[in-house]
Amino acid sequence: MALSAGFFYFLSFVAAAIAFLFALYLYLWVKKQKVENRKIIEVSKLISEGASAFISREYRILAIFAAVLALIIFILLPEPIWKGNIGDNISMAIAYIAGTVLSAIAGKIGIMVATLSNGRTAESAETGLKNAFLIGFRGGAVMGLLVVGCSLAGVALVLMVFGDASIILGFSFGASSLALFAKAGGGIFTKTADVAADLTGKVELGIPEDDPRNPAVIADNVGDNVGDVAGMGADLFDSNVAATASALVIASGLADPENAIKMVFCYMILGLVSSMIGIANARVGKNGSPTRALNASTYTTTAVFLVLTAAATALIDGFSWRVWGASSVGLLVGVIIGITTDYFTDDTKPIVQRVAKASASGPAFTVLSGTAYGFVSALPAMVGIAISALAAYKLCAPIGDGYALFGISMAAVGMLSIVGMIISNDAYGPIVDNARGLAEMGGLGEETIRIADELDSAGNTVKAVTKGFSIGAAGLTVISLLGAFMSEANAVLAERGMELITGFDIMDPTVFFGVLIGSAIPALFSAMLILGVDRNAERMVSEIHRQFNSIPGLREGNASPDYSLCIDIAASGALKELIPAGLAAIIATCLVGFIGGPEAIGGFLLGNIVSGLLLALFMSNAGGLWDNSKKYVEAGNEGGKGSNAHKAAVIGDTVGDPYKDTAGPSINTQITVVSLVSSLLVSLFVSFSIF
Amino acid sequence: MALSAGFFYFLSFVAAAIAFLFALYLYLWVKKQKVENRKIIEVSKLISEGASAFISREYRILAIFAAVLALIIFILLPEPIWKGNIGDNISMAIAYIAGTVLSAIAGKIGIMVATLSNGRTAESAETGLKNAFLIGFRGGAVMGLLVVGCSLAGVALVLMVFGDASIILGFSFGASSLALFAKAGGGIFTKTADVAADLTGKVELGIPEDDPRNPAVIADNVGDNVGDVAGMGADLFDSNVAATASALVIASGLADPENAIKMVFCYMILGLVSSMIGIANARVGKNGSPTRALNASTYTTTAVFLVLTAAATALIDGFSWRVWGASSVGLLVGVIIGITTDYFTDDTKPIVQRVAKASASGPAFTVLSGTAYGFVSALPAMVGIAISALAAYKLCAPIGDGYALFGISMAAVGMLSIVGMIISNDAYGPIVDNARGLAEMGGLGEETIRIADELDSAGNTVKAVTKGFSIGAAGLTVISLLGAFMSEANAVLAERGMELITGFDIMDPTVFFGVLIGSAIPALFSAMLILGVDRNAERMVSEIHRQFNSIPGLREGNASPDYSLCIDIAASGALKELIPAGLAAIIATCLVGFIGGPEAIGGFLLGNIVSGLLLALFMSNAGGLWDNSKKYVEAGNEGGKGSNAHKAAVIGDTVGDPYKDTAGPSINTQITVVSLVSSLLVSLFVSFSIF
Repeated sequence: MALSAGFFYFLSFVAAAIAFLFALYLYLWVKKQKVENRKIIEVSKLISEGASAFISREYRILAIFAAVLALIIFILLPEPIWKGNIGDNISMAIAYIAGTVLSAIAGKIGIMVATLSNGRTAESAETGLKNAFLIGFRGGAVMGLLVVGCSLAGVALVLMVFGDASIILGFSFGASSLALFAKAGGGIFTKTADVAADLTGKVELGIPEDDPRNPAVIADNVGDNVGDVAGMGADLFDSNVAATASALVIASGLADPENAIKMVFCYMILGLVSSMIGIANARVGKNGSPTRALNASTYTTTAVFLVLTAAATALIDGFSWRVWGASSVGLLVGVIIGITTDYFTDDTKPIVQRVAKASASGPAFTVLSGTAYGFVSALPAMVGIAISALAAYKLCAPIGDGYALFGISMAAVGMLSIVGMIISNDAYGPIVDNARGLAEMGGLGEETIRIADELDSAGNTVKAVTKGFSIGAAGLTVISLLGAFMSEANAVLAERGMELITGFDIMDPTVFFGVLIGSAIPALFSAMLILGVDRNAERMVSEIHRQFNSIPGLREGNASPDYSLCIDIAASGALKELIPAGLAAIIATCLVGFIGGPEAIGGFLLGNIVSGLLLALFMSNAGGLWDNSKKYVEAGNEGGKGSNAHKAAVIGDTVGDPYKDTAGPSINTQITVVSLVSSLLVSLFVSFSIF
Repeated sequence: MALSAGFFYFLSFVAAAIAFLFALYLYLWVKKQKVENRKIIEVSKLISEGASAFISREYRILAIFAAVLALIIFILLPEPIWKGNIGDNISMAIAYIAGTVLSAIAGKIGIMVATLSNGRTAESAETGLKNAFLIGFRGGAVMGLLVVGCSLAGVALVLMVFGDASIILGFSFGASSLALFAKAGGGIFTKTADVAADLTGKVELGIPEDDPRNPAVIADNVGDNVGDVAGMGADLFDSNVAATASALVIASGLADPENAIKMVFCYMILGLVSSMIGIANARVGKNGSPTRALNASTYTTTAVFLVLTAAATALIDGFSWRVWGASSVGLLVGVIIGITTDYFTDDTKPIVQRVAKASASGPAFTVLSGTAYGFVSALPAMVGIAISALAAYKLCAPIGDGYALFGISMAAVGMLSIVGMIISNDAYGPIVDNARGLAEMGGLGEETIRIADELDSAGNTVKAVTKGFSIGAAGLTVISLLGAFMSEANAVLAERGMELITGFDIMDPTVFFGVLIGSAIPALFSAMLILGVDRNAERMVSEIHRQFNSIPGLREGNASPDYSLCIDIAASGALKELIPAGLAAIIATCLVGFIGGPEAIGGFLLGNIVSGLLLALFMSNAGGLWDNSKKYVEAGNEGGKGSNAHKAAVIGDTVGDPYKDTAGPSINTQITVVSLVSSLLVSLFVSFSIF
């Protein structure tokens, strides 16, 4: 069957439209679920307002930031305005803005639906698992569908309108800069609140996790939504767009660009279709396990995608089985990374239990053993990414010149094909986490809280898996971004009649120079985020102390705290702490580029990717491990709640919080931002570098 | 002036002989200092016996290990015995054994003198700083002189006897395998004892640091010696030999090998001379500061070396100013790395104070802020290494083909030129640390303890600096080892008429595959060591509990504990935990080599170097930072001893102990071992790799 590229653009819009309609249906379904408990309505409203307030504030700052960047892009990219064609610069700036706006819309709606779902999930838990699970899951799936729909439609639109794959890099950069704010800013927000709430509530005052007397409790719940729903959604929107963008940039440099481009769109469309099938089939029996239900939907999506892409390869002229192989390898490695992550973070497996046991000797051992296992846990994922990149390359190299790199980018596209399902699982987490808190605050009784707990625990387990998955996907994506960077650099060099880059030789000291500095950047970036959380949490702790000291009757539960002040601190601090970290990464890229030119940047990106992956995996897994070993102790092991092991495990969890929810997952975004900045600035680096 | 290569060999032996005589003089001087206090003599004897026992046990196991490796080397290297010239295989095996034996001798004598000096330093402190400082410093300097003398004489001898630079790789591998045992094994030993002693003594029982009732206290003192004297000495012997070996391997591939080889020897000889001048001039006035005295000697050595090498370059025919420049850049960057390390770990500077302040909010904040600053602290050193490698390369590239890489290796040689002085400073640390403990146990009175404290505190400050220095040196060395690896690979490829390797392109998926896996290895290795310390400390804690429960009167100080059982646990556990970690690194190298051949190994070494440097710097600096912020709190800040900040700071220190004294500094050795294994096995990788 011979299909035109235009047909695939058309199909992309149709698929995106269906996804939007499906999301609308889920939204309406969630909305009509009943919520009657006054306390729940009230608190849920506070959470929703807090989240909206943060998002609005974030978007306001982002709008200024994006406007400045759009102006810079307009002046300098793809070529300085005084040298190149002004039309290209306008296109690039528009694509950039489109990238930020689409991601922002998806995030805004996602948050809205998530904060709509939490109270309804809590009340529905009174009647059992089945419906409560569905509300939580479907509330999250709205975000999943929006993200994939927006990225598919956005990429197709940009390519159709401007007809130049490299403009998609601008779109992708827009998605990245939003992700940097949403993921890192949201990450600082959520952990500021979480750490401050735990420190004052659980540690100092000995009150339960979601006790309404704690002024930070609403900020904590808001944080779950802005960090995990909006943040994770923006992060995966970013990875997804970046993977597609680099696949399209590489595709358009191939001997047969049209077929390659068709394949990219076809795989993305089928990924969306598979995710919709998976989402539609997610349900749990009356006494079934929510974890199993979530995993089953993921596996369904994976299997459907493999079958559909195989069918497309068999039926459509010009599609290659080798490319199908590369994409399948990517997807399978993603699943394997998820499973190994699970091994290190699941409390029914030995590692979490060993860390819990070590906690009995004191907090230093909690920290040491968690750190050590966190480091070990990076190995399987690194090996998985290494093998999938090598396999994709070797599979596709025989097709022709440049296809090897295209194969790697298709492995990333394959891994990200099920991203709709992944985001749904991930956004489910904060909804049911909130629901648990609401059930407690609304006084819904022990049985309901138990059910909410079960839903929550499934969210935690699945979250670790989706995080491993998203890091793996980012890993493959940035490898293909490295290829895209070389394509862009060569396009510039060819235009000027200069010698082309054939690769980046690590024995070349300029490349090596870049590698060493690049590898230090993720460490610096994550350190700045962690210190940001620390500083911000300190501010919030003082505010909480102030409220307990100055509001009479608060300690006894006769007066209400001022939740909004804590939300304010979390929000303003998050944005203040985030900007220097983001700028540091971008400035370092520019310095290296202007010192060593494109060769140094090639090395810089490599160093950045490698140490970034290592640290991201370490931090995400160590954080998950500590969280679950605390839960394991709380379930009555190693002395249970109140024991020395418990105290130590709580300290481990506090250390792990900014690792797993702020620094670790933000490193992905940092890597993508740096890669895109490099690709965008390459013509400047060629013109103005010292060496 | 025209000098022959033979003259430089001759000079090397003369210089080494003078160093040995100087060491003998210092030994005799230390020995004739008086020690009369019975308790001090008794405890000092226990420490000395414990250290000897550990060293003997370690060397016995090492002898078996070395014999097996020597056999493997004999069969396989430089070519399998059935293919190549059996004479070469015998030479390689002999060189390997010589490397282990010389390092072992230096370590053994160094320990002996250090354990001789500690009691004498303590007693001398009764009469003031001046003489006590001299005893501590001169006791350490014996190790420094032996290490440099042995490496210079050893390298010269191997090259003279076998006339083939690549045989020196065997010698270097011998030094590395000993360093792996001494540094990592000694590191596990010392932290096992330290952690267990602190946990039971300070935390559980509330008795002071060096209280003789604690069964682990002697093991702790022994640990300082085996970790910092023997371990650090073996580590720097290893780096020094590796730097020289790679410089010589690269030199012998140059157009004018003779002059290059002469330069290497000349620089090493002048480094030894400069260190001797620095050592001879180290002294502190009656009320002077020991820290300043140690730093002054280091700067003296640096200046003398720069002047002497400049004079040599001006006077000797065929010496190049460009090479002098490369070596000077290396040395200056080493000093700069030392100064930045000091900024992050000195308690008069803001970072340590900030971590102390964060400790007031609880241990999680101690850990988080220390981790974050540890990550940040890696940046300046990475940038320094990157710039010095780039500068050395650019300086020497104009001399001719291959000189660029020679320049990098000479930067490493330059950085390591003052290693005699560095080791003296480093070995001073455990001597005065022991002396402080002995002054307390011997009841020498408050004023003496105060003086011992002052000596000890200088040791801690200087230690952080020398550690940064040794990591920097290892960084430059392994870059040149990468060059040596390529030379070796090409020698094999040329012999077989295969295509030569011109570099390692990171866009080549085989190289990339190696990079990803290589970067995960230092994380795995350090995690295994940390877990080893954990497990071993748990064993020792149980033994301490057992003794307190079963020896009547121990708690009250009426009975003596059985120190030797604790020493046994530390020693046997250290060796048991170390071997899997070392094997894991070597096996990973072999797997990557047999899968991807020399290209994958090139990438593997790069990944290993980059993430190894990052983690080593992070761990060493974070550990130093925590140690000093605990000391800062103990000095009365943030609430002083017994406050919450103090409790948190102690936990930070316990986390940092295995970071800074076990895992961090052992990563250097792991990198060198892996690099040398690669160079040695390259012919097998060429013959038998899958891709």
